[in-house]
Amino acid sequence: MAMITGEVLIGGGASSGGAPGIRATNPKTGALLEPIFTFADEADVDRAARLAWDAFDSFRDSDLEIRARFLEGVAAAIEGLGETLIDRAEAETGLSRRRLTIERNRTTNQLRLFAEVVRAGEWLDLRIDPPLPDRAPFPRPDLRLRQIGVGPVAVFGASNFPLAFSVAGGDTAAAFAAGCPVIVKGHPAHPGTGELVGHAIQAAVADAGLPAGVFALLNGAVDTGTALVRHPMIKSVGFTGSRGAGLALMAIAAARPEPIPVHAEMSSINPVFILPVALRERTEQIARSFVDSMALDGGQYCTNPGLVYAVAGPDLEAFLSHVEAALALKHAEAMLTPGIHQAFDRGVGALASHPDVQILARGLDGDDANATAPAIFLTDAARFEADEALGHEVFGASSLIVRCETIDAMLEAAERMEGQLTATLQLDAGDIAEARRLLPVLERRVGRILANGWPTGVEVSHAMVHGGPYPATADSRFTSVGTLSIRRFLRPVSYQNLPQELLPAVLRDDALPRLVDGVRQG
Amino acid sequence: MAMITGEVLIGGGASSGGAPGIRATNPKTGALLEPIFTFADEADVDRAARLAWDAFDSFRDSDLEIRARFLEGVAAAIEGLGETLIDRAEAETGLSRRRLTIERNRTTNQLRLFAEVVRAGEWLDLRIDPPLPDRAPFPRPDLRLRQIGVGPVAVFGASNFPLAFSVAGGDTAAAFAAGCPVIVKGHPAHPGTGELVGHAIQAAVADAGLPAGVFALLNGAVDTGTALVRHPMIKSVGFTGSRGAGLALMAIAAARPEPIPVHAEMSSINPVFILPVALRERTEQIARSFVDSMALDGGQYCTNPGLVYAVAGPDLEAFLSHVEAALALKHAEAMLTPGIHQAFDRGVGALASHPDVQILARGLDGDDANATAPAIFLTDAARFEADEALGHEVFGASSLIVRCETIDAMLEAAERMEGQLTATLQLDAGDIAEARRLLPVLERRVGRILANGWPTGVEVSHAMVHGGPYPATADSRFTSVGTLSIRRFLRPVSYQNLPQELLPAVLRDDALPRLVDGVRQG
Repeated sequence: MAMITGEVLIGGGASSGGAPGIRATNPKTGALLEPIFTFADEADVDRAARLAWDAFDSFRDSDLEIRARFLEGVAAAIEGLGETLIDRAEAETGLSRRRLTIERNRTTNQLRLFAEVVRAGEWLDLRIDPPLPDRAPFPRPDLRLRQIGVGPVAVFGASNFPLAFSVAGGDTAAAFAAGCPVIVKGHPAHPGTGELVGHAIQAAVADAGLPAGVFALLNGAVDTGTALVRHPMIKSVGFTGSRGAGLALMAIAAARPEPIPVHAEMSSINPVFILPVALRERTEQIARSFVDSMALDGGQYCTNPGLVYAVAGPDLEAFLSHVEAALALKHAEAMLTPGIHQAFDRGVGALASHPDVQILARGLDGDDANATAPAIFLTDAARFEADEALGHEVFGASSLIVRCETIDAMLEAAERMEGQLTATLQLDAGDIAEARRLLPVLERRVGRILANGWPTGVEVSHAMVHGGPYPATADSRFTSVGTLSIRRFLRPVSYQNLPQELLPAVLRDDALPRLVDGVRQG
Repeated sequence: MAMITGEVLIGGGASSGGAPGIRATNPKTGALLEPIFTFADEADVDRAARLAWDAFDSFRDSDLEIRARFLEGVAAAIEGLGETLIDRAEAETGLSRRRLTIERNRTTNQLRLFAEVVRAGEWLDLRIDPPLPDRAPFPRPDLRLRQIGVGPVAVFGASNFPLAFSVAGGDTAAAFAAGCPVIVKGHPAHPGTGELVGHAIQAAVADAGLPAGVFALLNGAVDTGTALVRHPMIKSVGFTGSRGAGLALMAIAAARPEPIPVHAEMSSINPVFILPVALRERTEQIARSFVDSMALDGGQYCTNPGLVYAVAGPDLEAFLSHVEAALALKHAEAMLTPGIHQAFDRGVGALASHPDVQILARGLDGDDANATAPAIFLTDAARFEADEALGHEVFGASSLIVRCETIDAMLEAAERMEGQLTATLQLDAGDIAEARRLLPVLERRVGRILANGWPTGVEVSHAMVHGGPYPATADSRFTSVGTLSIRRFLRPVSYQNLPQELLPAVLRDDALPRLVDGVRQG
């Protein structure tokens, strides 16, 4: 039976760390959970980083099959935790067992998908330019390129995905797949869940015969995270959370003697554009599915549809009535932490008291602690544009509907919006011409464009982009979900005229896919 | 006949800009060249950026064949400038006609290579995950991914490659290939050369029927560059130059309301490790080829071998004698600008007067202005480690040889070195075991590893990496030379359940290579 001890996990073992730290809170009841989790001090951070650095060369040089099996081993070890994991996650997050079970499957599927990615070898980006000894005026040398891991990665998980975006979540899976050791700064909202998963990873590391330094899990306060990002042996950062915390990490990373990238996925309000024919033809269906999406799991998704644009008129009025009716049936749900709940109350309160915003609809109160009824607000395009704050994310079940006088006003609003993870089009066949006008505007501002769906529910696959221009993320050229997310943690190295016996194995044999003189082979 | 007017080039035309700016200097004679180049003011920057932004959607949406022919058109138009271009470049840079002719061919080959890249479509990174409507608990949507350009790119060319790293150099070619408009901040060391090439690009833009806003060339002082990097419609920066200027641009870009990446290729001393057997067996050949490489074109290459490690002993003493003899035959050459020459004199002077550094060899003085005899210095590993400044780049024909007591001391030195563009191994068959120990250390610190060659001479091909960990570049995950350099200016966008008629053409048909459910096709 897996035990939760509250210790920091470094070097394949557990130790008591520095000062006693925190206990987890059951957000539904407000009760404190055992045990106390100790905080890693600077010496712990240094030890974990040095072990990660020492493990890096052998881990990145490990056989691809061993690395793939390691990822599968992590998945199996997480499954081996059984209901213990779900029990603890439920107690720490207030999320439903159904949701957590789905999230666990997503997490293990994600690890197994990255195992396939490692084996397939596309990520190595192998390129071979054969020598041209007789070329004038200079011969061309033998040039071979592969991608290698950037080095040890610090991972800051998310509050709202205690499994899929946390200790063994997408950042960790992608970094491991790239051959990078990982040090996780544990999220204080679910430290016990994190520790259980941390033990599973430690077991998989040992089973795979990898150096223990490839993984560590440190709980701590802000200074622990700061020390980690500042450590010279950390070479990249994966972060999912608030804009404030993301910007703080970016500033710390940029101020290092050797600046490093921070992949911060920060904030997004995921605008939805309901085009006129769809609004008319599917008024109620769109209203109901919108409310279902915005209120799902307390609205605690980074892809929550927080902003809806539609053109004024009787169809919109009917839509608003349906929204009101649908929201009236939604209960408040306990939010992930008291702090998140307080921030939600502040955000909803600010909208409710805003002179240019109208409260369109509220859901029902609930019995849990840390729960506030979901809320949908209404404003118009001119008022929305006049106050930048109306475009800021309110994390939780809160959305703002923006009434546009004309479709052109909707297009202008799209041109002015900040970078987003997603944009959604609700459209019917008669809306295609307007959608075609919107599309290039959205492409410039978001990472994923959806039609006739809702942005919650992020597929972990090859063609997914969970990213987007700032402030949605720190760097729009990367995704934090899907197989392409491995690219965050890779850098290319070129080998010129190296003797055969010194070349990396993947560049010697021809088993893996590669570009030869620009032409794909294998 | 192409005319040099000194105007700023915006929107397909030329205009007089703001205040009169600079004239170019012939570094060999110190003579000022006609005409006066006017400086772009903030209004010019704004106009160029807005035109670029307005051109962006149609440029990035242009047919791949049109974009490829445009790149070929730029190459042909540069060739059309004939000797006029070489004459002006020779007058402005002091570089030899032979070198400039080779560089022009490299530049036009580079443009044509990117045309092939555009056509081949690998850069689009097309990925299709077909829908799984019956999957439980949720169906999988239709997901399709492509890469698009990031937006208008500001390019800051290099002093030392007036063609290949300047107005129509690698950054511009890669950005155009990615579908990004380009605004070049002209380099003050070769403004006339830049203007000639700028006219060639303008002609090619018009011939291809592309919007004139896809290209602009602005001369100016520091404030012009600052205004450009600060402009909200600029989305990326390509820079080649000094560490100080690169860091300044990075700071400006990071402080924007919307931070943007700066691809700064800044400084590198390109360490060479001469392993013991090679040192013994090829003493004179390595010494002579080293001196040829370090003194080539006044040593004004970012891949100049500025640092040489070798193990103490009689072989090294013989090597030093050969180096001394070889350098004694090398003449001083006019450097690119008086400023670069002064900086070289300062750098060489600091080494010459350093208490822990010995002057090993000097070349001959020359007749040109702005020329100082090349210099090679000697120190030992402990002294080198004791003063970080000894590891800083001296741009020009200056190198430092570091004598290591043992091969282990050489390895330790490698572990401590900063990020570099390249590292070179001089090795024979008997050195393989030592090289194997060095290799992982070098992989962590450099972008390209060479055996038995010299780092000057950067092939423009698929497997080239001209990049490396900080401070060699701002982001080790990218290269600024070779076809992979297009990735700097691309970001992924995912399309979920989009109606067929709204999908980008490249994601609709199946003519281009793509990953379908993770399996490569086409």
